[in-house]
Amino acid sequence: MMRRTQTSFLFDLDGTLVDSVYQHVLAWQQALHSAGIELSVWRIHRRIGMSGGLFSEMLLREVSAAITPDLLEKLQRHHAEAYAGLVQWVRPLPGAKDLLAYLTRARLPWAIATSGRMISAQYNLRILEVDPASVPIITRDDVAHAKPDPDLFIAAADRLGVDIHGAVIVGDSIWDMLAARRAQGLGVGLLSGGYGQDELARSGAIRVYDDPADLLRHIDEVGGRV
Amino acid sequence: MMRRTQTSFLFDLDGTLVDSVYQHVLAWQQALHSAGIELSVWRIHRRIGMSGGLFSEMLLREVSAAITPDLLEKLQRHHAEAYAGLVQWVRPLPGAKDLLAYLTRARLPWAIATSGRMISAQYNLRILEVDPASVPIITRDDVAHAKPDPDLFIAAADRLGVDIHGAVIVGDSIWDMLAARRAQGLGVGLLSGGYGQDELARSGAIRVYDDPADLLRHIDEVGGRV
Repeated sequence: MMRRTQTSFLFDLDGTLVDSVYQHVLAWQQALHSAGIELSVWRIHRRIGMSGGLFSEMLLREVSAAITPDLLEKLQRHHAEAYAGLVQWVRPLPGAKDLLAYLTRARLPWAIATSGRMISAQYNLRILEVDPASVPIITRDDVAHAKPDPDLFIAAADRLGVDIHGAVIVGDSIWDMLAARRAQGLGVGLLSGGYGQDELARSGAIRVYDDPADLLRHIDEVGGRV
Repeated sequence: MMRRTQTSFLFDLDGTLVDSVYQHVLAWQQALHSAGIELSVWRIHRRIGMSGGLFSEMLLREVSAAITPDLLEKLQRHHAEAYAGLVQWVRPLPGAKDLLAYLTRARLPWAIATSGRMISAQYNLRILEVDPASVPIITRDDVAHAKPDPDLFIAAADRLGVDIHGAVIVGDSIWDMLAARRAQGLGVGLLSGGYGQDELARSGAIRVYDDPADLLRHIDEVGGRV
């Protein structure tokens, strides 16, 4: 009898399953502004999806502002408040619910691993109609280091009881792809967070699709056969 | 005596001199939503900077909505209203004012050519402290076809009285770069509108810089010598 490698799917959340990146970008702009910091919006965009602490430290280094625990905490609080005000514009990405339903029907294990905290992720899970009681959700609260460290994806594979070498790690940002490489999983990029195709390929994506609907159409290419 | 090619600079406005792309993106999302159309935000982002009419037609084709003159007019009006509500977050891009002041001091002719209409551009010109009475500003109102058609840049070169073959055409979107190629000018890309470096290079940019400040630091590379 031939052995078959079990494929599993580990998903990023913002920009990958939920169309929330641009709202996060403007929420960060408003949070930084409230701290007297003006930073170009595209630079904020290119940092989204990494650990919130690393994110704030990188942004503050770019404007040469002093990084204090107090400032970091204030920024994260203001961001959460501003995001709550914009969340009315957030939708599931096309095909996201269908893709997850397909994997469930096909008995392919899947989980969600996000650099955000559960307090922000819960909005998005509700929009996506995912019940955290029945699907493994790994957040920043569960690990010591978020993306681009591999901890979130490693924890998600552990929670599913699968070998991460057979895991397809789906994300929209270069931080997902770098974390996928460091976790030794297979990075698959989606354009739905606003990065370009080459940015994702150069950071390690083995395939790049438009969005969850496009990934579902090509699911056989990445081991998603029933 | 050696002949010297006169270099001139033709600038796009949104995302190139003014940090307004992400606000335009969310304003279009709100306008589309008000017409009952839900479209992924990254797809809106990748259409910004092209002619508003073409932009709406492309978006509506993607969602297979019927394109009527009435709907197009309604979308453009809703977009302008939503943008007016977000314009408080719009800033000049780093180095934009310095770059324009440098060119003026160096007696290198420059102009602005935008796919937007003067009614929207006027906010941005005020933020940038550019006086339309003393600088050639070409808008959608002045030409039959906006980007990616070359008309805006050709009109800008004409207004300056310069040969477009010696014009450096600076923009943040692939629509600027495609229009620059069709106008036979030299496209220079900026990352400040949120496109990736390769997207701009593949659409014809001979050089790609971060933002106006980065272009000013490297101005000698593109013929900006005094």
